[in-house]
Amino acid sequence: MERSIFASLSPLDHRYYATFPELFAELAKYFSEDAMIRYELRVEAALTRGLSKRGICPVTAAEEVSRACAEITPEEVYAEEEKTKHNIRALVNCIQRRVSAAAKPFVHFTATSVDIMDTANALRFMEANRDLVLPMTACLLRILIKLAKENKDTVQVGRTHGQHAVPITFGFAMAQYVSRLGGRWEAMAKTGANLRGKLAGAVGAYNAASLFVDDPVAFEEEVLAELDIKPSPISTQIVQAEFLADYIHSVISAFGVLANLADDLRHLQRSEIAEVSEAFGEHQVGSSTMPHKRNPWNFENVKSMWKEFMPRMTTLYLDQISEHQRDLTNSASGRFVPEIVIGYLASVQRLINVLSRLRVDQEQLRRNLEISKEMVIAEPLYLLLANAGHPNAHEAVRRLTLLSQETGRTLRELLPEQQELQPYLERFTPEQRRVLEQPETYTGLAARKTVAICAEWEAKIGPGEAS
Amino acid sequence: MERSIFASLSPLDHRYYATFPELFAELAKYFSEDAMIRYELRVEAALTRGLSKRGICPVTAAEEVSRACAEITPEEVYAEEEKTKHNIRALVNCIQRRVSAAAKPFVHFTATSVDIMDTANALRFMEANRDLVLPMTACLLRILIKLAKENKDTVQVGRTHGQHAVPITFGFAMAQYVSRLGGRWEAMAKTGANLRGKLAGAVGAYNAASLFVDDPVAFEEEVLAELDIKPSPISTQIVQAEFLADYIHSVISAFGVLANLADDLRHLQRSEIAEVSEAFGEHQVGSSTMPHKRNPWNFENVKSMWKEFMPRMTTLYLDQISEHQRDLTNSASGRFVPEIVIGYLASVQRLINVLSRLRVDQEQLRRNLEISKEMVIAEPLYLLLANAGHPNAHEAVRRLTLLSQETGRTLRELLPEQQELQPYLERFTPEQRRVLEQPETYTGLAARKTVAICAEWEAKIGPGEAS
Amino acid sequence: MERSIFASLSPLDHRYYATFPELFAELAKYFSEDAMIRYELRVEAALTRGLSKRGICPVTAAEEVSRACAEITPEEVYAEEEKTKHNIRALVNCIQRRVSAAAKPFVHFTATSVDIMDTANALRFMEANRDLVLPMTACLLRILIKLAKENKDTVQVGRTHGQHAVPITFGFAMAQYVSRLGGRWEAMAKTGANLRGKLAGAVGAYNAASLFVDDPVAFEEEVLAELDIKPSPISTQIVQAEFLADYIHSVISAFGVLANLADDLRHLQRSEIAEVSEAFGEHQVGSSTMPHKRNPWNFENVKSMWKEFMPRMTTLYLDQISEHQRDLTNSASGRFVPEIVIGYLASVQRLINVLSRLRVDQEQLRRNLEISKEMVIAEPLYLLLANAGHPNAHEAVRRLTLLSQETGRTLRELLPEQQELQPYLERFTPEQRRVLEQPETYTGLAARKTVAICAEWEAKIGPGEAS
Amino acid sequence: MERSIFASLSPLDHRYYATFPELFAELAKYFSEDAMIRYELRVEAALTRGLSKRGICPVTAAEEVSRACAEITPEEVYAEEEKTKHNIRALVNCIQRRVSAAAKPFVHFTATSVDIMDTANALRFMEANRDLVLPMTACLLRILIKLAKENKDTVQVGRTHGQHAVPITFGFAMAQYVSRLGGRWEAMAKTGANLRGKLAGAVGAYNAASLFVDDPVAFEEEVLAELDIKPSPISTQIVQAEFLADYIHSVISAFGVLANLADDLRHLQRSEIAEVSEAFGEHQVGSSTMPHKRNPWNFENVKSMWKEFMPRMTTLYLDQISEHQRDLTNSASGRFVPEIVIGYLASVQRLINVLSRLRVDQEQLRRNLEISKEMVIAEPLYLLLANAGHPNAHEAVRRLTLLSQETGRTLRELLPEQQELQPYLERFTPEQRRVLEQPETYTGLAARKTVAICAEWEAKIGPGEAS
Repeated sequence: MERSIFASLSPLDHRYYATFPELFAELAKYFSEDAMIRYELRVEAALTRGLSKRGICPVTAAEEVSRACAEITPEEVYAEEEKTKHNIRALVNCIQRRVSAAAKPFVHFTATSVDIMDTANALRFMEANRDLVLPMTACLLRILIKLAKENKDTVQVGRTHGQHAVPITFGFAMAQYVSRLGGRWEAMAKTGANLRGKLAGAVGAYNAASLFVDDPVAFEEEVLAELDIKPSPISTQIVQAEFLADYIHSVISAFGVLANLADDLRHLQRSEIAEVSEAFGEHQVGSSTMPHKRNPWNFENVKSMWKEFMPRMTTLYLDQISEHQRDLTNSASGRFVPEIVIGYLASVQRLINVLSRLRVDQEQLRRNLEISKEMVIAEPLYLLLANAGHPNAHEAVRRLTLLSQETGRTLRELLPEQQELQPYLERFTPEQRRVLEQPETYTGLAARKTVAICAEWEAKIGPGEAS
Repeated sequence: MERSIFASLSPLDHRYYATFPELFAELAKYFSEDAMIRYELRVEAALTRGLSKRGICPVTAAEEVSRACAEITPEEVYAEEEKTKHNIRALVNCIQRRVSAAAKPFVHFTATSVDIMDTANALRFMEANRDLVLPMTACLLRILIKLAKENKDTVQVGRTHGQHAVPITFGFAMAQYVSRLGGRWEAMAKTGANLRGKLAGAVGAYNAASLFVDDPVAFEEEVLAELDIKPSPISTQIVQAEFLADYIHSVISAFGVLANLADDLRHLQRSEIAEVSEAFGEHQVGSSTMPHKRNPWNFENVKSMWKEFMPRMTTLYLDQISEHQRDLTNSASGRFVPEIVIGYLASVQRLINVLSRLRVDQEQLRRNLEISKEMVIAEPLYLLLANAGHPNAHEAVRRLTLLSQETGRTLRELLPEQQELQPYLERFTPEQRRVLEQPETYTGLAARKTVAICAEWEAKIGPGEAS
Repeated sequence: MERSIFASLSPLDHRYYATFPELFAELAKYFSEDAMIRYELRVEAALTRGLSKRGICPVTAAEEVSRACAEITPEEVYAEEEKTKHNIRALVNCIQRRVSAAAKPFVHFTATSVDIMDTANALRFMEANRDLVLPMTACLLRILIKLAKENKDTVQVGRTHGQHAVPITFGFAMAQYVSRLGGRWEAMAKTGANLRGKLAGAVGAYNAASLFVDDPVAFEEEVLAELDIKPSPISTQIVQAEFLADYIHSVISAFGVLANLADDLRHLQRSEIAEVSEAFGEHQVGSSTMPHKRNPWNFENVKSMWKEFMPRMTTLYLDQISEHQRDLTNSASGRFVPEIVIGYLASVQRLINVLSRLRVDQEQLRRNLEISKEMVIAEPLYLLLANAGHPNAHEAVRRLTLLSQETGRTLRELLPEQQELQPYLERFTPEQRRVLEQPETYTGLAARKTVAICAEWEAKIGPGEAS
Repeated sequence: MERSIFASLSPLDHRYYATFPELFAELAKYFSEDAMIRYELRVEAALTRGLSKRGICPVTAAEEVSRACAEITPEEVYAEEEKTKHNIRALVNCIQRRVSAAAKPFVHFTATSVDIMDTANALRFMEANRDLVLPMTACLLRILIKLAKENKDTVQVGRTHGQHAVPITFGFAMAQYVSRLGGRWEAMAKTGANLRGKLAGAVGAYNAASLFVDDPVAFEEEVLAELDIKPSPISTQIVQAEFLADYIHSVISAFGVLANLADDLRHLQRSEIAEVSEAFGEHQVGSSTMPHKRNPWNFENVKSMWKEFMPRMTTLYLDQISEHQRDLTNSASGRFVPEIVIGYLASVQRLINVLSRLRVDQEQLRRNLEISKEMVIAEPLYLLLANAGHPNAHEAVRRLTLLSQETGRTLRELLPEQQELQPYLERFTPEQRRVLEQPETYTGLAARKTVAICAEWEAKIGPGEAS
């Protein structure tokens, strides 16, 4: 069944497919229906190979099955499912049709459908994580590290509650995301590699396998080891739901870090702030009616994708519940889980594109700090007064800031007139005085910490190729 | 861009598309990317027609634009968007390319992109609701009504907490869903018809339009009236988010009713209960390894789809927040909203199919009631005793039920031996005694209420054609 | 059991109770455990009165029961529940203990526990809605209306994507919230008044009542009418879940409007924007370490409360599912639903407080518009050129804006040099030219629309007393 | 402020507090407002001790502060906050009031409010996890292990889709929960111990501390080490949100395991299944109107609590977003996070109580298996036929099951008549035949796996005291 992508219903199959054609072609190798069937065929082939190694079926049977599995198409399976109304029975029928009578009995032998499906499903997430999620996240990390290092000394006013606080550097602000996204990269690496398959039969007790092998637990491990995956510690008909829930939590919480980053950067693009901007193409249109607009639409898109996919974690939690040895109420919902990973990667790709060309406006950064530069010293002033022995320094400085606001004169201008403070001020060291005179140097460890965090993550994720 | 549906990433574009090909072909008329572009073209055409009616542009211009809008393909628009990076500017360019120099200026004239997009979006939901959501829901209602009426007298044990309580009828149980789904049908009718468009310009204040017409509010109403839609009471760049949120709440809460129905019916199919069953095809396979299984997989699918789509209401609530005159963070997420309606309709269709052929096992219903028939009289007994003046009837009967459980004798057998109760028992009327002797008649108004509810909803939804 | 509020576990019972002591004392009249028991007693009393009107029990019995219901304390009921492990049985025992032997049988007669509880629950939401939710929302609306009207002509730059777009007025921005919150006020009025009770017995089929009255449906209506509430159209053991779900949707979507308003206002307080500010108390501290800070903490609090309560809608959807004639899995979760209303009202109260004293900085509004005033004319310029017959006006102006950015000269300065545009410019009317010369007048219908919206909602919500 | 618990608004502060008084008294030591203030005081004391160790302030100052911190009451702090409108400034003022002029400056010295609050918050979760969450979960695990071991050989029919499948043992079914909850216990241990504090100042760059110490990063580690907690790798004003999100994910996913267990056990209590039951107290009432009912209300309560708390994970994801160096929009929502842990523990406690006294009805288990015992052999029969060389065994057996259903004769009765199958049947070994003759022995590794899983988790969680 061929059709135009514009006839698709999901934005993942039209708009975002058209936006990132290469990425989505890659994703289809893991997450299309076609791919799912191929993964299932890989598991069926591994099973029969495992049986032949145990001498339960002839080696030639295993070879025939492997060959058949390499040839079958999804169309064929779907046509068969029309009749059976059962997707794995359809798959098995398709394999059996292509092998000799001697091999037929050993197709799917001792397995239940879910042995195949759950294992295939875990495998595709595991491999997509290894091949796409981790490398692409690492690529974004490298871009963030570059941005952080380049701007480790670029002074920026720190903002809490949207209010100017004390200075940091723009690199330091980016280093936050290096560290947080790095932490999520580690979490995804761990939970992705810990996904599990199963080959424990219809109710998880190896009822069928135990008719033919003495140690079905070992047999399960052998077959799954061929596919580089470990079994669920104990299963009902299905793999324990928590392994996938942990993985998706790691992906969704990584998505949350992207959303925070995107929010920060789009606010820094506000007309009044204008510290960064997305590079715009020559023909690119900002608004259909306001030709002068330059909107932070890529960052807005990332935030918006997060709003679409984040709430879906609830589905994973709902799917933890499966009655007795399993009900099927996690089946349809489970088919949509890959979309979460796809949404995440579409956003990673977008950020890779836009952050590689992010413009940082040094002049505007300086100008914004200027607005409250004179107020910034309130914090060091109060601390230095306290350290010099003033018993109520915070209150004294708070009053001084009010006076400053009323009079329009700076704290520095007002200081010499405050008789009460003079004894303490005299105790300040020259270096301490310097901070009061040059508030823009009051950035603490911003640069040092930026360097340390970047070095830590460069070591952890390794050099990587350019993406 | 053509490709196999099995290369699609969303289950809506492969598995469920393949399951319900006719329904999904219908859905594509409203919710594919192709359809969205056609809706937008309809709005652009209406706008220019509106301008010509006001004499702002020549009638021929409006005609040219309408003709152009009928011809443009999504491929063309996407190719243009490659350059502009702006979907509506691309659309406008495509229209302008097809019209005369005299008409060009009046394409999209005074409108902002979102005027077109928000109106188009509201329209497609409104029309899909009118053409698919309401009729299909009504069709399901008719099937439920039939089931309820046919079984209005089919006695079934009522179950609270999964425990046998007092009897109802199976029709009465179905009438609950007639009423609840009927209520949702009304809610969807109301909220779907109340979706809103806009034509208020870039920040909602009719800045542009007010340069050319005296009464832009009236002009907005005129143009939207052509499309049979009302304007948002006041807009920023976007329509107020609450109209769509209300509609989707009505859809998701309707979905919840389906999920409850599906849960009930799959539990009634439990091996130990077995009061109903899905009809199975001759070649249909229940399990790849347990050939005797007949699973309630359609009901499980409905529950599972609900688990996928219900949590997405959160996205609608998140999209209520748009900063100042709008940010774009509702854009990507907004593209996925139709999927909720699609998921709902796939489940409605599935229930139509399976409930048309539901098997109700009268014998098994009778047998299950038999299990606790003798206990059922505990309730009427206690009430009749109380009514006859027993000061502590509930406690007296509670003790009697314990005695019954200990001795294995029925309440009826034990009754004559309870000296203390005799004076009250003697006061019972013959009719009251009958309930104690024939507990299966203790169904209250089950049948009458079933009839009343069915009649109410038959009247409300009308006769309809068979689906 | 007395204890310090600081020993409480929920912030609603310590921090926010301490913040809004009067409001929370009011809320406790509807939503404390004490209140719930009092509501249940009201329903029990109404039931026995209903029985006496039908002649099923003596009038004196109804009087005794009413008296008992007025006296019982929650402590008493809880002590009894220790024994019965059943809250309504405990309640009934407490009533029976206080009435004569003749009245005892008619306490709770024909009712099931949930008849009492579901009716009581609906009643408390309905009355809290009528007495607190609607009036307080109306009070907030009045403050917003005042703000909107006072600032209907206060020009503010419109912002889309955080970027300066074209001008509106601050009053117009506030009028959006008048309209949206007004719409929610209407929705809450409607759904709150539509909550339902029931008196249909253990499985909803009036099994018990039908032993004693001919028309139990009419009897249910009579008793509920005494309490000013309508019955569920048909019930299982419980009222249809959709009535409460609709009400809570209306509350949560109203909360979303508050969250959007709060977000807007805290962004307008950003140091670089500074168009509005919360009034600060004389002794109030902005930061424990940065004495100069003035944080938008009240708006932040509203946003944060919304983040806590909005996701709880999911619980309402989960509670739509109750197996067969009911399971109890909506019981504990149902007890938490009032918290959503409480969270909403705490936020309404906070906004009432802070918006009554909001400072709007006219000078800063003017200064911000100044930043992009010269760019604002891009939109009217392109439209006027188009209207004057320019075939490609949008593109022409887009290029001009790029030139302006490169050269640092304004559009107005560049215009006379654009030979190509002169023929079109000459066709502009004087009034059209005025907009180009005074971009701050390019506010469209902002003021008119503000007035219209405010008038509409003043009429709908009525005058009200000052809160 | 004293008041009756029944005047509380949150069910956690009335109903569930009254249900589990001892547990809730324990919880209050970590999660009441009182406790939060005590935790903050502990952090302030540790900070000043750290300063004294570095010689920044006199040892006596640290001693004075520690003493003051031990004495202050929440009432005092709240009274002060009335004035300051800032909770930590209020706390600091209260401490300063109790210390000498020499010590005053070193209260809260170099810290920002959030240094104290975020560290205190992490500490209370970390300690509650160590002292309550892990031990109570382990206690529940021990009860599940006991139940699993005692019933390792108790044959139960396996159920998939609510349909009888092939047999397992009840112990094996419980072992699933041992393994899954065990896995969550490990996850909570890991994420709970990994919560983080901070002491990095107002914007995370150690601006203040760097005025007084050369190595503020090391100083932060020192002070936090006193409290047995590690710092956030890099902070803005707040600790990275992911540490708490990971912890709460582990708690909520553990809650999901409880919900699944509760669902399974309540379904096993259905009247028609009746394999297990909650023990009932002598005076306990099942229903106010149906005296014979014995409802699975404890399991229903657990499911219901999960429905309340599970959706709140969304709040944690929302709180990942904090603009720039922090906004305050995670503050109010953050205060409610402990409720998730409280809800989880209330459910653990309930399950501990009810599972300690769970009744397993051996006779009923046997009877239920009997229903489909004869169908159970379909699976081994098909596999043995396949193994014996039958090329189409699944289809052959599927047809046989249809024949069995039509004729009402068992598979075993029909087998001898199937000519086509005889050659294969003759190849079966005696042991293989035994399974067909005694389907109840077809339990695979159920018992062995149960023993292995129990041993694994007994070793991991250790012996523990009875709870």
